[in-house]
Amino acid sequence: MSQPDGRRRVVIHDPTLRDGHHAVRHTLSREQLSRYAAAADAAGVPVVEVGHGNGLGASSLQVGRAALSDDEMLSTVREALPNSKMGVFMLPGWGTADDLRRALDHGADVVRLGTHCTESDLTERHLGFLRDAGADAQCLLLMSHMADAARLAKECRRLEDFGATAVGIFDSSGHYLPPDVTERISTLVDAVRVPVIFHGHNNLGMAVANSVAAAQAGATVIDACARGFGAGAGNTQLEVLVPVLERTGFATGIDLYKVLDAADLAERELMPAPPTIDSVSLVSGLVGVFSGFKTRVLDIAGREGVDPRDIFFELGRRQAVAGQEDLIVDVALELRGARG
Amino acid sequence: MSQPDGRRRVVIHDPTLRDGHHAVRHTLSREQLSRYAAAADAAGVPVVEVGHGNGLGASSLQVGRAALSDDEMLSTVREALPNSKMGVFMLPGWGTADDLRRALDHGADVVRLGTHCTESDLTERHLGFLRDAGADAQCLLLMSHMADAARLAKECRRLEDFGATAVGIFDSSGHYLPPDVTERISTLVDAVRVPVIFHGHNNLGMAVANSVAAAQAGATVIDACARGFGAGAGNTQLEVLVPVLERTGFATGIDLYKVLDAADLAERELMPAPPTIDSVSLVSGLVGVFSGFKTRVLDIAGREGVDPRDIFFELGRRQAVAGQEDLIVDVALELRGARG
Repeated sequence: MSQPDGRRRVVIHDPTLRDGHHAVRHTLSREQLSRYAAAADAAGVPVVEVGHGNGLGASSLQVGRAALSDDEMLSTVREALPNSKMGVFMLPGWGTADDLRRALDHGADVVRLGTHCTESDLTERHLGFLRDAGADAQCLLLMSHMADAARLAKECRRLEDFGATAVGIFDSSGHYLPPDVTERISTLVDAVRVPVIFHGHNNLGMAVANSVAAAQAGATVIDACARGFGAGAGNTQLEVLVPVLERTGFATGIDLYKVLDAADLAERELMPAPPTIDSVSLVSGLVGVFSGFKTRVLDIAGREGVDPRDIFFELGRRQAVAGQEDLIVDVALELRGARG
Repeated sequence: MSQPDGRRRVVIHDPTLRDGHHAVRHTLSREQLSRYAAAADAAGVPVVEVGHGNGLGASSLQVGRAALSDDEMLSTVREALPNSKMGVFMLPGWGTADDLRRALDHGADVVRLGTHCTESDLTERHLGFLRDAGADAQCLLLMSHMADAARLAKECRRLEDFGATAVGIFDSSGHYLPPDVTERISTLVDAVRVPVIFHGHNNLGMAVANSVAAAQAGATVIDACARGFGAGAGNTQLEVLVPVLERTGFATGIDLYKVLDAADLAERELMPAPPTIDSVSLVSGLVGVFSGFKTRVLDIAGREGVDPRDIFFELGRRQAVAGQEDLIVDVALELRGARG
């Protein structure tokens, strides 16, 4: 979509209150959600996503209980968004059709489903329901570096056939460098007719550069969080990406000073400190392992007296994906055994 | 220079203990200098630079007194570097020929001179002295985005004629995007016979991407600091750049785990917190104004009741360079007047 001045429009999708939620163990209060959502809305951020870090229905002992229920989060944020759309995220299996129905009742405008990069068939039933409900139903492939461009294209075509209104990829472990993004996004843009989405992480310091590469390759929906709020090395930094995209020739429709105000508010009121790239996040990005493993890896490495970096390298060799936390213990014990 | 495996060698030059010094007002102790230098040496970092943030002879009331004298800093770091070279930096006018002589007496291997991007003639006498002394005398142009590629090439050829053993550019305000770096570095590589240097800052989240672009364009000396230690948004993050360069096909000769250890030590022992990109640093990068202005801009903006971002935009329009702190007051007063 071109602007009157010929610049291409990029829709910024802001998961600060969902992916950022990981960094504070899903404890944001009504007041925090409301104040940030209002600031993002005032800045003209098109979509503000909210929820437990792992999405609708995920609040649990296993991955952490959120301070608020999904209903409370959605009703709070909906009220704070006179202009922006409200987005939600769900991992099928963690959330159910009933969670989707309730999200739509709360006025969610954009409903996103995420699956592992080779498991897009898990979305078929939910996409059917969302299509019948007339929802904007976007689908993203997680850990997308674990599949090549052709495989991702095949999965995205299937998602489009199921009724997805936009498809795309998460760089869940922050593993990509810009040429990787260019290759994959170009392939997806050629493969589907719906908009293509990119969601980056900053483990290799490349989140902004990767997002620009994605836009240049034809992605028209890009995710970014205020101050990069997120677990580990964090997400693409929203208020950095916006002016960099504008300077690169894209239009975001977002007001610079107001998005800086929103980011200042986020730093002051949502997070203990903005994310930085520590050694463990860097290694998890390098080897392409989900950064959410970090806490568990550090715990187990400490307990077993193993270098956490060795665990990450071995998890990378074994192509570990989220949900395989048991593997961490196996790897640690083997490394300890091999050494001893 | 090619490695046996065909990968091109990039020399990483580490100014953690000099440029990073800005972030802690030049207060690093002997113990801190020594411990970091030893860790960087153990990792195989080729050059470790040390000194007051503004270089030799700069410790003063105006820009801040260092905790240690130049002599103390140099003798401490020299002892901690059995393998790595020791580097120093000097802004002619701040430091003198006598400072250079003393640095060589202390065993400095790499002596760097910096001037504003259009003022390279200021180095002629010092370069003559360093050439006669047989020193590795490198010259860098500050605020290099304020000159076009052709002008930078002209200045660098002059530096080469004066006897510089390597020449290059600082992205002092963190203003570049990768294509800007590619254009300038390629032009310099074509213009001179000596190695070309790139020194980035992270104001637009592009320090690592810009440094990779510099290496790909032919720069063979790249600066980077542990955890990006530096004022404002910080420098290129050393331990991120190293594996990213290696993955991109360059050889650094640096041990990954040991440079991670050095970075962990730097975060733990040198800095209150790693740098992040706050709104003021972002704006100073966008408009191309020296981030070192930040504290003064915030002070004056607060006193005069003006938005610090407006001051930065106006300083950018007026092409302010470091040393023109008086201009901040003028701009603030004018903005206040225009508003009232």
